[in-house]
Amino acid sequence: MLSRVVVAPSGFKESLSAQAAADAIADGVRRVLPEALIDVIPLVDGGEGTAATLAAVTGGRLVALPATGPVGEPVGTHFALLRSRDTAVVEMAAVAGLSLVPRALRDPGATTTYGVGELIRAALDTGVQRILVGCGDSGTSDGGAGALQALGARLLDADGFELPYGGRELTRLARIDPAGLDPRLRDVELLVACNPYNILCGERGVARVFGPQKGATSAQVEELSAGLENWADALTRDLGCADLRHGPGTGASGGLGAGLAALGARLLPRFDVLLDHLDLDARLARADLVVTAEGALDRQTPHGKVPAEVARRAKLYGRPVLALAGTLGEGAHDVPGVDAFSGILPAPMALAEALVRASELLTDATERALRMILLGARLPAHAEVSGTQRPSSVR
Amino acid sequence: MLSRVVVAPSGFKESLSAQAAADAIADGVRRVLPEALIDVIPLVDGGEGTAATLAAVTGGRLVALPATGPVGEPVGTHFALLRSRDTAVVEMAAVAGLSLVPRALRDPGATTTYGVGELIRAALDTGVQRILVGCGDSGTSDGGAGALQALGARLLDADGFELPYGGRELTRLARIDPAGLDPRLRDVELLVACNPYNILCGERGVARVFGPQKGATSAQVEELSAGLENWADALTRDLGCADLRHGPGTGASGGLGAGLAALGARLLPRFDVLLDHLDLDARLARADLVVTAEGALDRQTPHGKVPAEVARRAKLYGRPVLALAGTLGEGAHDVPGVDAFSGILPAPMALAEALVRASELLTDATERALRMILLGARLPAHAEVSGTQRPSSVR
Repeated sequence: MLSRVVVAPSGFKESLSAQAAADAIADGVRRVLPEALIDVIPLVDGGEGTAATLAAVTGGRLVALPATGPVGEPVGTHFALLRSRDTAVVEMAAVAGLSLVPRALRDPGATTTYGVGELIRAALDTGVQRILVGCGDSGTSDGGAGALQALGARLLDADGFELPYGGRELTRLARIDPAGLDPRLRDVELLVACNPYNILCGERGVARVFGPQKGATSAQVEELSAGLENWADALTRDLGCADLRHGPGTGASGGLGAGLAALGARLLPRFDVLLDHLDLDARLARADLVVTAEGALDRQTPHGKVPAEVARRAKLYGRPVLALAGTLGEGAHDVPGVDAFSGILPAPMALAEALVRASELLTDATERALRMILLGARLPAHAEVSGTQRPSSVR
Repeated sequence: MLSRVVVAPSGFKESLSAQAAADAIADGVRRVLPEALIDVIPLVDGGEGTAATLAAVTGGRLVALPATGPVGEPVGTHFALLRSRDTAVVEMAAVAGLSLVPRALRDPGATTTYGVGELIRAALDTGVQRILVGCGDSGTSDGGAGALQALGARLLDADGFELPYGGRELTRLARIDPAGLDPRLRDVELLVACNPYNILCGERGVARVFGPQKGATSAQVEELSAGLENWADALTRDLGCADLRHGPGTGASGGLGAGLAALGARLLPRFDVLLDHLDLDARLARADLVVTAEGALDRQTPHGKVPAEVARRAKLYGRPVLALAGTLGEGAHDVPGVDAFSGILPAPMALAEALVRASELLTDATERALRMILLGARLPAHAEVSGTQRPSSVR
């Protein structure tokens, strides 16, 4: 009764694209269930690989161009034109992602989303009616200030001088001059695919939650938090938009969500806007088993990560869900809808080796997991199984 | 239909005794199957923990005493008297084990089994009719030369001087003088529980297979091999025993098997002589699921390791077998009788951390594995499952 297996993983950060992860898992399934129909759905979450995957699955294309990278140097980047040609997909990670920030330069107070604004301008040049901006995997914490600069806004300090790049400058922001903003922004539908759990300011604000991951010290976290508070105030005051400090998604990609929202963009839960392109629900509904995966399974997972979203949707159709991850952290036990889960490491191993060998490890781990599931499936009189899952309050 | 689960692991070298491993696994089973009857059988293989476990399960006792450790310094050690009081169990690892050799002194050419001979003498003092010597986890490669010295044999060089401790001296052995051997050895039944795959000499001889694990350089391996060849020749010539170079178990514990065989001991496959004390087969026959484990699952496993033996016996009764291991190596896929297997690591981790956290990791991994098995057990119409296991020729 395992004749149709849906393989729907996220990418593994810094090692596997969603497609590569899906292929690795499919190889493992095939070893154990050579007859099964394997339905491979690499899942995009707005971050790395989103533009390329959506171009591929919709029969669209990628447009390559240079733009300003997160540390101010030019980088080769791209955006996607979907087959309908009325929609462009700008993936922020492709021009301002963490993987574009050399480790030695990981200073989230200095990086910029300027290139995101450049990509949006380039997309406007193609005459599309809709621009979908994918957030995730960012290397910036500038609230989208750089993107607004690239689109024509002037960010001025108390002496009327333009601010340089970087979130740390935002504490000095006195006024935003929107006069030079690209007028075409008024005629295009701007959508932002973001994690609604990411908010701009406050205790759960983006600087506090993600700053340390991007290399911020605790002093820098405080400086960035103060800068983003000042940024939110200025956006509301000078661009006439609503309060952006605590709205869902305002903290996406180091606050890029807030900056784009001030330009009239709609911040949408990323899976709602992305997964419909993949026909995910109908494919989950036909699965005998759903295998999902992500680099880590932990306390963050239920807060808008791929395995939680896949599990939630699979459970609408009563489908069993297996989740695999490179790292199992606290909270891995308690992801709603995940029936069983496993790490992928066969032996003690440093992170660097695990990243390099991720594809092979994921295939082998999938094989092991499927063998365990088959062991269970072959137990006699399985209807009498009376096990309970661990209550989620226990850990 | 998982109402009775047999938990039958080996110990995890340098981290968990078999009892501790069994308890950790049982905890994990209980989290998922709180109603199941869990039959805990810590398995001894002749190595570390054998004497203590057999004393405990038979209601016997441990006799504590000092003896000569593997590097020549006195150590506190013990042997077991089983409840019947006619049998003593001497565990070589308790007096000449690798864990008694400080890392800085890991020179297998220098270590001695002298303490094993002392323990045998102490066991003879109790008047037992049978002495069972458990091999495994040894830190020596002296062919049992030290044990024979402690029991009264003299090992002489060409000038008639007694050899000092250590396998490297055996190349200089000219003659064994057995005149002083303890006469009580003639009246006691001496049994050696050993891995029959371990042989004394040749390409698969003990110096070549295990020498490097014990710290030998390749030059030392050659020296030890030559010494053990010379030792085997001398034992046959001077003690009148059969050729001991290639017999099953002659290489056990750095060749201790051969030395004791020359005294008339019977070398027996370790599980045949040990597991009957634990009533293993009858307990496996009643299991709905068998969970076994060892520190590593790899190419060595089928060659007489606990998980392979448990799987072999479980399959006599058609029982499904799950194997867990700290390290999955090459060959883990291909252990006959093991239906499914898993590592225990939740995340990239150094060996040192894995050793310290082994108990907790094993419990969590057991829980994950059982959840996967239950996922399978709950699949509808499981009788139609048509998966095949990976052919053993593929890797």
